[in-house]
Amino acid sequence: MELQFLGTGAGQPSKQRNVAGLALKLLDELNEIWLFDIGEATQHQILKTNIRLRKVTKIFISHNHGDHIFGLPGLLATRSFQGDVGPLTIYGPPGLEQFVKTSLRVSRTKVSYPIKFVELTEGGLIYQGKDFRVYTEKLDHRVPSFGYRIVENSRPGELLMNKLAKYHIPNGPLYGKLKAGEQIALADGTILNGKDFLGPARPGRIVTIIYDTRSTPNIAKLAQNADVLVHESTFAGNEAKLAHSYYHSTSVEAAQVARDNGVKKLCLDHISARYLGNKAKRLEKQAKKVFPNTILVNDLDQINIQMKGTN
Amino acid sequence: MELQFLGTGAGQPSKQRNVAGLALKLLDELNEIWLFDIGEATQHQILKTNIRLRKVTKIFISHNHGDHIFGLPGLLATRSFQGDVGPLTIYGPPGLEQFVKTSLRVSRTKVSYPIKFVELTEGGLIYQGKDFRVYTEKLDHRVPSFGYRIVENSRPGELLMNKLAKYHIPNGPLYGKLKAGEQIALADGTILNGKDFLGPARPGRIVTIIYDTRSTPNIAKLAQNADVLVHESTFAGNEAKLAHSYYHSTSVEAAQVARDNGVKKLCLDHISARYLGNKAKRLEKQAKKVFPNTILVNDLDQINIQMKGTN
Ligand SMILES: [Zn+2]
Ligand SMILES: [Zn+2]
Repeated sequence: MELQFLGTGAGQPSKQRNVAGLALKLLDELNEIWLFDIGEATQHQILKTNIRLRKVTKIFISHNHGDHIFGLPGLLATRSFQGDVGPLTIYGPPGLEQFVKTSLRVSRTKVSYPIKFVELTEGGLIYQGKDFRVYTEKLDHRVPSFGYRIVENSRPGELLMNKLAKYHIPNGPLYGKLKAGEQIALADGTILNGKDFLGPARPGRIVTIIYDTRSTPNIAKLAQNADVLVHESTFAGNEAKLAHSYYHSTSVEAAQVARDNGVKKLCLDHISARYLGNKAKRLEKQAKKVFPNTILVNDLDQINIQMKGTN
Repeated sequence: MELQFLGTGAGQPSKQRNVAGLALKLLDELNEIWLFDIGEATQHQILKTNIRLRKVTKIFISHNHGDHIFGLPGLLATRSFQGDVGPLTIYGPPGLEQFVKTSLRVSRTKVSYPIKFVELTEGGLIYQGKDFRVYTEKLDHRVPSFGYRIVENSRPGELLMNKLAKYHIPNGPLYGKLKAGEQIALADGTILNGKDFLGPARPGRIVTIIYDTRSTPNIAKLAQNADVLVHESTFAGNEAKLAHSYYHSTSVEAAQVARDNGVKKLCLDHISARYLGNKAKRLEKQAKKVFPNTILVNDLDQINIQMKGTN
C-alpha cells in the first residue's frame, strides 16, 4: 500500500509541480490502483511511474475545478488503448459526469470499458468492499468539494503457533479453520476453538485525502487516527487570512488537524506556485513546529504505508 | 516567423512525443502567436518554451479528437492567470465550442478575456488581416477535419536608393511617401512617382498545416507553393493501406504532396508511437526519396521561415 503523488501544485502547472493528482496503490491488497483528482497531464505523470492504467479501477474527484479534472478525459481515452481493461467507477460532485460525457462525445471517444458515475452530494460511506471502505465528507471550498477517508478493514490476528504446539495438529486444513476462528475436533476428541489461539486483530490502515478546502470541522471526521493524512497546503502558516478568503488552508492549519486527530503522518500537498524551492520548505518548517511528522511532498514522491504493528 | 512543434505524436502521449500542438510565432510580424491544435499538456510543453500565452490571439483546431483538443480548457484557464490578456479567437469544427463551454462551466472557470468561436463547416477564406490571410479546406478523416493555409500578404519592394541618389532628396517624410508608392514634388518642381523607384514586391510566405487526414485532393489546394508544409505522417511509407483504413497518411504520401505542389520544405508531424527512435527516421528516409527537403520533427523543434528572396 503506497501513495504516489502525481501532481502537488495548485491552480496551474509549473515546471516544478503539476496540477493535482494522487495514486493510492493497493496492488498487494487488491491488485488495484485508485486515483484521487486528475489534473491535466496526470496521464503524462503516470508515464514516469510504474502505474498501469489498466489497474486503475476507481477515481475519486474532490471538486470540479479545472486543475483537478481537466486530465480526466484524456486519461480515460488512453486507458481504453490498453487491451482488456475492466470497468471503472468515478466518484465526484455534480457536473463531473456531464463534463466527462461531453468531452468523450465531442471527441468521439469510445472507451472500451464501462464507466459508472457516483455523484456525491453529502457525506457518508460511499464504498464498502471486502477489504476497504471509503467515506466522504463535504469540505468548505468555493465550489462543492469532498474529502476522502479510505479505511482498510481490520485483519484477524495471527495464529499463535507456540500455544498450539502441544496438540500436535497435523499439517492441513485444520490450521485454516483455526485461523478463521472456527472450532475443530482432534483425533483424540479434543475440541479447540480458533478464537482461543488467535493474536489480537490487526486494525486496518487509514488514509485521508483532503484537497481544496478552508479549515472546517468535517476534516476532523475524516482524519481521525489516519496513518497518513494528505492535506492541501496552498498557503504558508502566516497567511491564514488570505487562505480563508481564497477558500484554502495553510500548512499550519493542516498540522493542527494532524495533531488534534491522532494522525501518524502528514503530507502537505497542493502547494501554490508562489512557494518555490526554499519557500516551500518554509511551509513544512512551520507545520513541523505543530506536528513534527510532516513532510511537504513533491511530484512523483512515493510513501509506503506500513501495516500497523509492523515497522 | 517561426514554427515550433509542441507535440508531434499521435493518439496518446508517450515519453518521446506529446499529442498534437503547434505554434506559429508571428512576433516580428504581428507580435502575436497562433496555435494549431491543443492536445493535453500543450500548456506544459509551452512552459518549456519562450511562448507567453498572453501573445496567443488565435487558435485553430483541425478536428475534435481528444489528442487534438483536450489541452484546450486548461490552456484557456491558464491564459486567464496572466494579467492584461486580450481577446482570443478559436476556429474549429462543430462541437468544439460546446466542449470548451461545458468544460469552463463545470469547472467554474471564468476567463478574463472574450473568446470568439468561429465554427468551420466548409472550405474558404476564414481570416483576412492587414498582413495575413488564412484559408481552410475540408480533409478526409473519420470526423470533420480541416487543414489550414496561412498566407502572408506580399510586401512592397525596397526603395531603390541608388536610382534616387541624383535627386538629392533631403532626409525626412518624402522617403516614406516614395516607399508607399506615392508622388512627391521636389523643391525644384521635379515630380517623382514612388512606383518608379520601388524594387519588385516581395511575395509573402505561406505555411500549410495538414493534421489528421487521408490522402485527398483538397490538401493540394492548401499546399500550393507553401514555404513550409507541415503534414501528418502517422504511418510509414509502406503502410498506405493501413493508413487509408485508419483515415491517416503515410510519410510518402506527404512527400508526394510536397513534390507535386511546389512546396519548399516538408515537416513530417503526428508520428505514431509505433515508430520510436530509428523507426521514425525510416519514415523520414522514405519521404526524402520522394521529396529531399523533408524533416521529421520532434517535440520543441523550431524552424525559421525566412522571407522570400532572402538567404
Ligand atoms: Zn486546486
Ligand atoms: Zn490525431
